[in-house]
Amino acid sequence: MNGIGELDGAATEEAERHLNSLTKPPGSLGLLERIAAQAAGITGELAADVSKRAVVVMAGDHGVCEEGVSAFPAEVTPQMVKNFLAGGAAVNVLARGAGADVFCVDMGVNADLAHEALLVRKTRKGTANLAREAAMTRADAVSALRSGFELAAELARDGYRMLATGDMGIGNTTASAALSAALGGLTPDEAVGLGTGIAEDRRRHKVDVVARAIALHAPDGSDPIGTLAKVGGLEIAGLAGLLLGAAANRCLVVVDGFISSAAALVAAAIAPQAVPYMLGSHLSQEQGHARLLERIGLKPMIHLDMRLGEGTGAVLAFHFVDAALRVMREMATFESAGVSRE
Amino acid sequence: MNGIGELDGAATEEAERHLNSLTKPPGSLGLLERIAAQAAGITGELAADVSKRAVVVMAGDHGVCEEGVSAFPAEVTPQMVKNFLAGGAAVNVLARGAGADVFCVDMGVNADLAHEALLVRKTRKGTANLAREAAMTRADAVSALRSGFELAAELARDGYRMLATGDMGIGNTTASAALSAALGGLTPDEAVGLGTGIAEDRRRHKVDVVARAIALHAPDGSDPIGTLAKVGGLEIAGLAGLLLGAAANRCLVVVDGFISSAAALVAAAIAPQAVPYMLGSHLSQEQGHARLLERIGLKPMIHLDMRLGEGTGAVLAFHFVDAALRVMREMATFESAGVSRE
Repeated sequence: MNGIGELDGAATEEAERHLNSLTKPPGSLGLLERIAAQAAGITGELAADVSKRAVVVMAGDHGVCEEGVSAFPAEVTPQMVKNFLAGGAAVNVLARGAGADVFCVDMGVNADLAHEALLVRKTRKGTANLAREAAMTRADAVSALRSGFELAAELARDGYRMLATGDMGIGNTTASAALSAALGGLTPDEAVGLGTGIAEDRRRHKVDVVARAIALHAPDGSDPIGTLAKVGGLEIAGLAGLLLGAAANRCLVVVDGFISSAAALVAAAIAPQAVPYMLGSHLSQEQGHARLLERIGLKPMIHLDMRLGEGTGAVLAFHFVDAALRVMREMATFESAGVSRE
Repeated sequence: MNGIGELDGAATEEAERHLNSLTKPPGSLGLLERIAAQAAGITGELAADVSKRAVVVMAGDHGVCEEGVSAFPAEVTPQMVKNFLAGGAAVNVLARGAGADVFCVDMGVNADLAHEALLVRKTRKGTANLAREAAMTRADAVSALRSGFELAAELARDGYRMLATGDMGIGNTTASAALSAALGGLTPDEAVGLGTGIAEDRRRHKVDVVARAIALHAPDGSDPIGTLAKVGGLEIAGLAGLLLGAAANRCLVVVDGFISSAAALVAAAIAPQAVPYMLGSHLSQEQGHARLLERIGLKPMIHLDMRLGEGTGAVLAFHFVDAALRVMREMATFESAGVSRE
C-alpha cells in the first residue's frame, strides 16, 4: 500500500498560467481554479477527461449499536445495501445526475448478502462493540484497508479517473467520532453529533460511549492502523484504503461527509502524501465535521446542511470538478477576446 | 409591477410529505429538501420540469468609476459584453455545463453595442457619479426596473421556468455597497470589499466614496426606488425588476453574488412577497455578501470563494435544483424499498 507519487508540478503550473490568461480577474473563480490546478497535477493533463467516474459506497455493521447510539436499528444496513443495488437510494439518484456509476461494497455487513452487482469484500460480519473491546483485530483492519486499496486499483484499471467515497453503516458516526478523538485531537463532546437524528440526551450518552472507548483503548495516535482496529469500522477501513489506492493510481478522489472524513483522517495519518489527491465536498451537519476537515486540510465547498452519508455530498462536488475542467477547456483568453487587463 | 402571489401551500406540504416517505432520515438531505419543497410551492407541481432555464446577464456602466474604485478600466464592460455574446466568458462556460441559456442585456452600457443576440434595454448610457450626484433619475430607475420585469415575463412566456441573475459593470460593487448601506443597514466599511481585486488602500478609498455618497444623498430606506436612483446602477435596477418579474410569473430565480444580492435587497424592499421565489447560491468573497444575504433571508449553499459575478455562482446552483427535483422523482420510499424506519 504505497507508491503514492507527488503531484505533477509542471502540469499544475501550466494550468495556473492558463487560468491567469482567461477573461476574469486572476483567482476570481476561487476554488474552481484550485480544483483545475489540482486535477492537472494529479492527471498530468491540462484538462483531463474525468467523465468516467464512480462513487464507491462501502457498508459495514457496528457492534457498538448495542449501546443504543443510533436512531435506526442495525437491520437498516443490509436493507439499505439492497436499496443501493436497486438504484433507489439518494446516492443513486444524485450519482445519475452527476454521470457517476455507483459501486456498492459489502465490507462487513452483519448479514449474508448476495447480488450480482454487490462487491463482496467482507473481512468479517460487523465489528465488535468498541465500547467494550477492540472493534476488530489489527489483521482485520489491514485486510479491510487492503481491500479498499485494491478496489481503487481495479477501478483505475477499468478507466475510472475520479472517485467519490460513500458509506453506509448504522452506528458509524460513533466509530468516526472515536477516530476523530483518537487521531484528530477532538474531544468526545466536539466529535459527537446527532447522527441521523438523535435527541440531545441520546447524544450525551453517545459522548459517554466514545469517552469510555477512548479510556478503555488508550489508542496511540502515532499508530493509525492500530487505532482504526480498536475504534474504527470495516467500511471506514475500506474507505481509507480506497483513498490511498486512488492516490496511488493518480485518481482525484472526493471525500464525502463525516464518516468519509474519518476515513480520510486515517488515510492521511498512514500516508500524508495522499491528501493532495483528495477533494473536500460538503460540510455535514454533524458537528465535528468542520474540525475534522481542518485537521486533514480539506475545504468543504457545499453547505447544504446534509447529514446522510452514502456519498451524497461527494457526488454533488463532481459538478464543480466538471465546471473547473470546462473553464480550462472553453473559456476565452484576454487576448482571444480582446479584453483589457487591469 | 405587481401580481406576486403566495407559494402554493398545498403543493409545498405534499412535497414535504413525499420527502419524508423517502429512504433517508427525515430532513437529512438538508437544503436539497427545502429546495424541492420551494420549487413545488412555486410551480404547484411535485417535481416540475425546469430544464428550460436561463441566466440573464445584465450590463451597465457606472459614473463612479471616475473616482478610481475599480482595478479594471470602464472599457472592460462593453468588451465583456462582446465576450458573453461570443460565448467565451466564465458564465457561458458554466451555463453550458448546467444546460442553461445565456441572455445578455445592455441595460446601460456606455457604448453603442449591436449584436443580433444582444437584448438592448438601455435606459441611458451609464449612470452619473453617485459620489457627486444622483446616479440616475427616479424615472430612469423605474424604466430599468420595468425592463427587467418585462424581460422575466417574456422569458416565462417562452417557457423558461428557472432563471438566474448575472451582472457585468465595472464599478458596480461600489453601487452595490452603497445600496447595502442605504437599504441593508451595513456600514460602508462592512459593505465595501475588494471587488475584482483591489488592494486595501484602494478599499479604504472606496469606503470613503460610499460614505460620501450616503452623506450626500441621505437616502431614505423606506423608499427603495428613490434609493436605487440615487446610489444604484442600471443593471442592478434591471436585475431587481427581473427578480420581481420572475416571482410574478412563478419562476424560481437564483440570486448570484454581491451585485445580484444588492438587486435582491432592492426587490425585497419593493415587494417582500418576491423573496420566497428566490434561491441563494454562493457566498462571494466580497466581504459584505454574507450580511446582505442574511438581511434578505437567503442562504448561500456554495462556498467557492468566487468573486466574479456574471451569474457564475447562480448557474452552479442549478445543479442543486436538479438534484433536489431528481430526489423527488427517483428516490425509493421506505415502503417500496422495504427499509425499516427509526
